[in-house]
Amino acid sequence: MSLAEALRTILTGPEQVSVNETVLEHHSKDVTSYHPGVTPDVVVFPTTTEEVSLVMQHADQNGIPVVPFGIGSSVEGQVVPIRGGISMDFTQMNSVLEVRAEDFLVRVQPGVTRLQLNQHLKEYGLFFPVDPGADATLGGMAATNASGTTAVRYGTMRDNVLGLTVVTADGSVITTGGLAAKSSAGYNLTGLFVGSEGTLGTFTELTLRVYGIPEYTLAARAVFPDVRSASQAAMGMMMCGVTLDRVELVDEHTVKVVNKFKGTEFTEAPTLFVEVSGNKAAVDHSFLLAQEILTEEGCLELEFDSDGAARTRMWTARHEAAFAFSASQPGKKLMTTDVCVPLSALPDAIVEARIAIDENGLDGAILGHVGDGNYHAVLVVDPENPEDMRRASHVNQEIVRFALERGGTCTGEHGIGLGKAKFLPAEHGAGAVQMMQAIKRLLDPKDILNPGKIFQ
Amino acid sequence: MSLAEALRTILTGPEQVSVNETVLEHHSKDVTSYHPGVTPDVVVFPTTTEEVSLVMQHADQNGIPVVPFGIGSSVEGQVVPIRGGISMDFTQMNSVLEVRAEDFLVRVQPGVTRLQLNQHLKEYGLFFPVDPGADATLGGMAATNASGTTAVRYGTMRDNVLGLTVVTADGSVITTGGLAAKSSAGYNLTGLFVGSEGTLGTFTELTLRVYGIPEYTLAARAVFPDVRSASQAAMGMMMCGVTLDRVELVDEHTVKVVNKFKGTEFTEAPTLFVEVSGNKAAVDHSFLLAQEILTEEGCLELEFDSDGAARTRMWTARHEAAFAFSASQPGKKLMTTDVCVPLSALPDAIVEARIAIDENGLDGAILGHVGDGNYHAVLVVDPENPEDMRRASHVNQEIVRFALERGGTCTGEHGIGLGKAKFLPAEHGAGAVQMMQAIKRLLDPKDILNPGKIFQ
Repeated sequence: MSLAEALRTILTGPEQVSVNETVLEHHSKDVTSYHPGVTPDVVVFPTTTEEVSLVMQHADQNGIPVVPFGIGSSVEGQVVPIRGGISMDFTQMNSVLEVRAEDFLVRVQPGVTRLQLNQHLKEYGLFFPVDPGADATLGGMAATNASGTTAVRYGTMRDNVLGLTVVTADGSVITTGGLAAKSSAGYNLTGLFVGSEGTLGTFTELTLRVYGIPEYTLAARAVFPDVRSASQAAMGMMMCGVTLDRVELVDEHTVKVVNKFKGTEFTEAPTLFVEVSGNKAAVDHSFLLAQEILTEEGCLELEFDSDGAARTRMWTARHEAAFAFSASQPGKKLMTTDVCVPLSALPDAIVEARIAIDENGLDGAILGHVGDGNYHAVLVVDPENPEDMRRASHVNQEIVRFALERGGTCTGEHGIGLGKAKFLPAEHGAGAVQMMQAIKRLLDPKDILNPGKIFQ
Repeated sequence: MSLAEALRTILTGPEQVSVNETVLEHHSKDVTSYHPGVTPDVVVFPTTTEEVSLVMQHADQNGIPVVPFGIGSSVEGQVVPIRGGISMDFTQMNSVLEVRAEDFLVRVQPGVTRLQLNQHLKEYGLFFPVDPGADATLGGMAATNASGTTAVRYGTMRDNVLGLTVVTADGSVITTGGLAAKSSAGYNLTGLFVGSEGTLGTFTELTLRVYGIPEYTLAARAVFPDVRSASQAAMGMMMCGVTLDRVELVDEHTVKVVNKFKGTEFTEAPTLFVEVSGNKAAVDHSFLLAQEILTEEGCLELEFDSDGAARTRMWTARHEAAFAFSASQPGKKLMTTDVCVPLSALPDAIVEARIAIDENGLDGAILGHVGDGNYHAVLVVDPENPEDMRRASHVNQEIVRFALERGGTCTGEHGIGLGKAKFLPAEHGAGAVQMMQAIKRLLDPKDILNPGKIFQ
């Protein structure tokens, strides 16, 4: 019996098991990244925890790799089934199971996307804040410990996943965490699984922390003479206790490319994008203080508005940056760096990154989450051009080296996947990596859970 | 050669190895809890990571238990060396190693206490927010994943420890995490060690997140007709986006006992204690909104002030509650429950806890961290009186049962230690507990790291 035939005896619904070429191709790689695809042998679409468990039991008994798949928005090749086997697609498990408004909690299946969840939560006056940009699934976001522009206020997935239902390598089902906002009861398994990129277990249910939708949001765009003064302004605001929802930085060249490809006329200089929310009077007063600090740090131009459309327009140069670079060189792919450095190292890191990009004859956006020291150089590359790839890889390496020398991390939010496995020992040291590998062997002795990821 | 003699060849400084009766006795139990003491064979006072490593190597080679000790403020018997061996006292490792003000980070040794750290940070305009009440060591606080009254705003130790230096069971030294505010680089070892209560490794250095001291703090005391309306008011404020630093509840009987033993005249009814901080104008506006909500929910009496002395006086009934109960029955010990429930279950939980205490003829304070669903029944018990202990243990069990039935946890911040090990399987299920035990065996194969804790 072929693998697909065997799986059809387990998943008996229509189209729950597919070997269709297009479906296999779709599950071979992440959507936008440069990592080459590898097709899985079969794609399964489970609908329940029990079905996931049955598939895992079959995989365990037969030593078949299993790679979880959400919408494929990972950027380090996490969803690439490099050893073939089963791609497990969670789009059929996309129900919001329970909204506990009074507890500020929701229970969801892993295939629910963040926009879908927020649409669902709106009527309760609640929202889920973690925003990695893409409309990723919550299972995928938990797998990579995603964060994004709101991490400065609301933290990462690890801070917002309270509990998980996990199917382990042998198909057992365990639950971790619970409905309490905090716990000191035993080892933090939830925090171990979040960020494990499908290598320790597969999530079939998540309990998430949600928040009241702020009454009022004020967004601002502040132009600075240089990256350093913009960063200083962000730190100054945080130091003075201005509660920032988002504080993003793009550099001069990034604004230029956005202007060119979006037809906008933003001042071509380092720009800070700020968002503050809460009750109107408090926000207005916070913003007065913010304005003072922005001005003190040499802000050349300041625009702010609370209106939704105006906020979106103002933030264009941030939101459309990666897209503008993609559009500027059609057919190419993106290699995105993702280091996170101590806050004080961020201005130098960004300046150095731009120099490295220029010196290597590449092009790309620079986007900084200034509140937490995480920034991306989004490099436009042709994966078919070895010289292009060599140069991009060199820039990536330089950016990571700079970060690690300052105690930073090679990945603030995208995860290790295939692309950053080579940096793991330099970041953590041999001892910690060996401990991680020992945990991997303990929980996945046959190496069937997303094999070949995280560790080289 | 005796154990002490052998250790003196490793730790050669004066008084680094002690078998003095008073010293052994001091390291036999936690300071205030009901758990009976067991004296260690020897107490060591290491001063460096290397010394800790050498002691661990000796312990590993000879199968000797090692129990870390800070100031002994744990409440579930975590520091009791129930199998004898070495009590490792960290009071000599009490240096603040580095303040990185611009990065909102500090590096400390594990024996630094939180008040010591805050004293040190003051000149930088920074503070470390986690406040479990006692002036615990930061190593100990990390070991139990402590939190306290500020968790509603700043989270728990797990949210604020960015990196650790850990000496493992065989004396190896590893580092976890780093100086970046967030990371998705491999498994979250930091989060696994935080809350592991000395059973997976011993911390010799911690990197902690710190925050700007708020410009202005407003504290309030709000009296309500019942526990439910007080809780509703707290939830209402959170829902409307009032950023609360602290929101604490004590019940009617607790206020009564405080009045009696402190000579105060607070209104004897359920009372909410609130603290809001930030820039003055924003806080004042937030508080206007808070006041509206408090009034709507039936607040009978509201007092608020920004002056330090007034704030302290106002909060007396919260701060002095446990002490007042201790003082009311001299010579007795405390058994403190520590469940954390989903927010909506908190009012019932508190009401039921008071009924259980009364019905069992016991006395004790009830203190609720209303912002995160964690509350304590602080029961006054005589450990020498079996009937007293039986009844207290029964109340504890009832309180935990109530919490677990609602998806809560048996310990929000004190940890499992000896006292709550019996509840672990009911809370997490056999599968998750087996996984925790497998991790314990993996990292401590000879069971020498604080043996007999967490698992029964």
